[in-house]
Amino acid sequence: MDKIENWIKNKVETNHTSPTKFKQFKQTKKLKIIPLGGLEEIGKNILILEYDNSILVIDMGLQFPEENMLGIDYVIPDISYLEKKKDKIKGVIITHGHLDHIGAIPHLLPRLNFPPIYATKLTIGLIQKRLEEFCINKKAILRETPYKKEIKLGSFSAELFRVNHSIPDGAGVFIRTPIGNLVHTGDFKFDFTPADDKPADFSTIAKYGNEDILAAFLDSTNSKKPGFTPSERSIGKTLDKIIRNAKGRIIISSFSSLISRIQQVIDSCIRYNRKIFISGRSMVDNIDIASKLGYIKAPKGLIRKLSTNINNLPSNQILVLTTGSQGESMSALTRISLGAHSHIKIKPGDTVVLSSSPIVGNERAIYTVINNLCAKGAKVIDNSSMDVHVSGHAHQGDLKLMYSLLKPKYAIPVHGELYMRIKQKGLAEEIGIDPNKVIMMNNGDIVEATRNSMRKSKVKVPANHIVIDGLGVGDIGTQVIRDRKIMANNGVIVVLFRAYEKSGHLVGDPDLISKGFIYVKEIKEIAKNTKLRAKKAYNDAISSNPNISLKDLKYKIKGALTRFFIKRLNREPMILPLIIKV
Amino acid sequence: MDKIENWIKNKVETNHTSPTKFKQFKQTKKLKIIPLGGLEEIGKNILILEYDNSILVIDMGLQFPEENMLGIDYVIPDISYLEKKKDKIKGVIITHGHLDHIGAIPHLLPRLNFPPIYATKLTIGLIQKRLEEFCINKKAILRETPYKKEIKLGSFSAELFRVNHSIPDGAGVFIRTPIGNLVHTGDFKFDFTPADDKPADFSTIAKYGNEDILAAFLDSTNSKKPGFTPSERSIGKTLDKIIRNAKGRIIISSFSSLISRIQQVIDSCIRYNRKIFISGRSMVDNIDIASKLGYIKAPKGLIRKLSTNINNLPSNQILVLTTGSQGESMSALTRISLGAHSHIKIKPGDTVVLSSSPIVGNERAIYTVINNLCAKGAKVIDNSSMDVHVSGHAHQGDLKLMYSLLKPKYAIPVHGELYMRIKQKGLAEEIGIDPNKVIMMNNGDIVEATRNSMRKSKVKVPANHIVIDGLGVGDIGTQVIRDRKIMANNGVIVVLFRAYEKSGHLVGDPDLISKGFIYVKEIKEIAKNTKLRAKKAYNDAISSNPNISLKDLKYKIKGALTRFFIKRLNREPMILPLIIKV
Repeated sequence: MDKIENWIKNKVETNHTSPTKFKQFKQTKKLKIIPLGGLEEIGKNILILEYDNSILVIDMGLQFPEENMLGIDYVIPDISYLEKKKDKIKGVIITHGHLDHIGAIPHLLPRLNFPPIYATKLTIGLIQKRLEEFCINKKAILRETPYKKEIKLGSFSAELFRVNHSIPDGAGVFIRTPIGNLVHTGDFKFDFTPADDKPADFSTIAKYGNEDILAAFLDSTNSKKPGFTPSERSIGKTLDKIIRNAKGRIIISSFSSLISRIQQVIDSCIRYNRKIFISGRSMVDNIDIASKLGYIKAPKGLIRKLSTNINNLPSNQILVLTTGSQGESMSALTRISLGAHSHIKIKPGDTVVLSSSPIVGNERAIYTVINNLCAKGAKVIDNSSMDVHVSGHAHQGDLKLMYSLLKPKYAIPVHGELYMRIKQKGLAEEIGIDPNKVIMMNNGDIVEATRNSMRKSKVKVPANHIVIDGLGVGDIGTQVIRDRKIMANNGVIVVLFRAYEKSGHLVGDPDLISKGFIYVKEIKEIAKNTKLRAKKAYNDAISSNPNISLKDLKYKIKGALTRFFIKRLNREPMILPLIIKV
Repeated sequence: MDKIENWIKNKVETNHTSPTKFKQFKQTKKLKIIPLGGLEEIGKNILILEYDNSILVIDMGLQFPEENMLGIDYVIPDISYLEKKKDKIKGVIITHGHLDHIGAIPHLLPRLNFPPIYATKLTIGLIQKRLEEFCINKKAILRETPYKKEIKLGSFSAELFRVNHSIPDGAGVFIRTPIGNLVHTGDFKFDFTPADDKPADFSTIAKYGNEDILAAFLDSTNSKKPGFTPSERSIGKTLDKIIRNAKGRIIISSFSSLISRIQQVIDSCIRYNRKIFISGRSMVDNIDIASKLGYIKAPKGLIRKLSTNINNLPSNQILVLTTGSQGESMSALTRISLGAHSHIKIKPGDTVVLSSSPIVGNERAIYTVINNLCAKGAKVIDNSSMDVHVSGHAHQGDLKLMYSLLKPKYAIPVHGELYMRIKQKGLAEEIGIDPNKVIMMNNGDIVEATRNSMRKSKVKVPANHIVIDGLGVGDIGTQVIRDRKIMANNGVIVVLFRAYEKSGHLVGDPDLISKGFIYVKEIKEIAKNTKLRAKKAYNDAISSNPNISLKDLKYKIKGALTRFFIKRLNREPMILPLIIKV
């Protein structure tokens, strides 16, 4: 594609074509739409728009690891495509401050020469904080951008518009491109009565709808859920009732970015005379940032740092706000549930509220936390027993309303796994969008768009999972993860042979060291037989080919032991033969 | 307790006490209620009733492993308590044929001298099959027991009564004991219009309720769900509509023990002229057993073995019934979703129905299967998009009805994790049971009951997780599982030192072999530094104490490398130092 574009460009310039003709040529240029992440998972959202010499990036998120990504901290998008074109990047627009939209910024910015970042006030505050943690805040260019202000970005111009979400200052993006207008909703819902926030900007969205939208990119996360997303304010009422009626301490666990919910809890605590103690690093950080920027308002002394001072107050004046509503293994709530928290020990009379709902895959961990809290005598309230959480993502009603306001020619469902996006496709079609104009993309797909057509290219750009594990960065799907899986299921066994340097003949029996492999009861008999098999495999290999390479020798030993373990134990551990020449 | 009992008995016998006095003494004997499993998990259900020289066992189930039980196939109850008293066991009553009630039988029976097993017809058929797989069917004593027939079991007598569940022939148990009557519901729900099955036996349950029930043991699995469990027949209607309207092939995935649902699918297939192809071993086995015993009725030729013959029929005459509705990694549906099934390749036009709902912890796996099916062009219907599944477990309405019919003095919620059983406690209290008489037990707890009291003993009996992993049996919580977790998260690194036999001084640099530890990019620098640190740790240890034991030396090396890896990589792999004397 690029070659052809360059060829056309060169041709145009060298042939002194007339302006009109030039314009015609210009019209044959195509907009490329490339999602590098967020379309095959919940997380690592990033969308590329490319036209001529301009690239616009929307969001730079991370993804929390799936179950089979053993030992991984998180996953970031693969930007090898962007790296090659980093000089073209005119800007990065961030829709809101959640980690699945901002989390990869510190990893990606340095590799792209720090393009400017545009976002609303709170979002900028949260990005700033994250950049500080990585010590690159001074190099980054952060441009706080009010709603409805036009941003010029090369061939593009963009405006943020207000949507509701589970964090304040959420934005959608309206983008003018040379081939037509686009709208990207970011994560959104409509909330007519948000708590301490304003409703989504219906009239501006409707205005965009009247300007001919070529394509719309809508959030698919909740596209299976019927009706409209309930209002955040309804949750405030339920929480207020719980706080009013509880006789003992209250512990509320929620997402630390749910600033509006935190404000509602603060308001109730003022009403019923409870002090708030904060637990969990992200909760402390987010409340700090939101307070400084004016998104959280609380009288002095109401919010306190959690320490042993919590024991100086009577139980009915205590409310603890904590992270860990997803049952994360090192989170404050998990430690509380295990009795391992330094300041909070659960006692009968405590009420614990999980003001959240499980993210797919976290269910088991969450119910383990709930069981442990119950066992210690707490009364536990979660979203299945009372309405203590609403989602920030559009239900089917919200999606249909958004489509009705925007009336786009094309729909490209984003943010969500395939089954969610297929559901949105169905909704778009119900609203009247031509089924052939609802385009299903995958990460790394390229759609080439003109005023009148959108076509998926046969070429794809790299869109791998880049994993962050401890302080290292790697590619997933590598041998490392495969090896971890083998060891997770069946352990490892090291077989240590000593052999004479010259003859290659064994000195004594091989030694075995195993981890995570066999149970105590079985060890003796298995070990004896393993040694016999290992020795036999070694000797057979050497005698059938005295010049056998070390690699082939190890391969033969592994094969023989694998067969033995499958037959004897129906298991396949990682086998590591080591041969020491003496 | 036993000592005291024996002492009393001896005293009675040697002192020639009068019959009246003897009777008084006898009344001081207590019934012991001991759940060995099923109260801290969904699965491995087993309850022990012990009075004098009689023990009655209810159910012998297995549990599928939780996420943190790496590499485990399943878990069975710990019967060390029972083993010591096996001569007292008068019988084992099995409430129904699901694996969480029958699955441990082949493992436990041989260790208990094969006590007789009592169950209804289909349940006996399924147990028989499982015993055949373990080649112990000839030793077992299986007694097919009709509903309402009295079984004499030492100090106890018992009757099975009909309840509804997600498998035919489900039973609750009414038990007369010397201190009063007990009712154990097994897994149950009330279904007024079951499909091809009869409604629960209300009148018999009500009759028991009028005979004074001392204690009732009710299923807690769904105690968080409001209302009544919907009828199985309602699902038949939805499935019929799907089968009637689909133009292409239909693949229905469900639990293989949902015999009534399978019969409903058969009926629809007769109606709309589709042949049924069976996929998945347990589906084949269960349909075979149920057909032989008359629980499934289908015209000859309708149900076919799945092979390449499926391609001889037009798509609209094909329905595939398969296992794998929980996203199990080796199941037929998972293989279909991955394109790895030998006979079924998904094509556009196929409809896949997951007639099931996710068991907690399986959600991620199931949605991955759904995504993969969607990607191959299938239309996927699951319980969130249409009502294609109902549970077999009592909702809150069913539980309240059961309590109202039985009017027990004491309630001991069983079958379920703590948070589910606590919900049932709340319901029992709503119905009017004295909160002090709703008794919360854990696995291994002993309740000592008389006519007038129930008291939890301070003593517990062993109730560990016994894991089945490949062909081995072990105890969970051992080092094996801990080691697997370390390796799953961070891999293993073997550090191989060669040292002179006498001086202990190193020969050359140590060698490293790592698996699942570092990514290719990083290897060189990390390896170099690891070798340096390892060498230094070795030399430091030797020079500070030339007589250091091998154990202490390895400990020092591990410590030094752990500190290095945490600092450099923020990771803690399994470190295996090996020291070879040359």
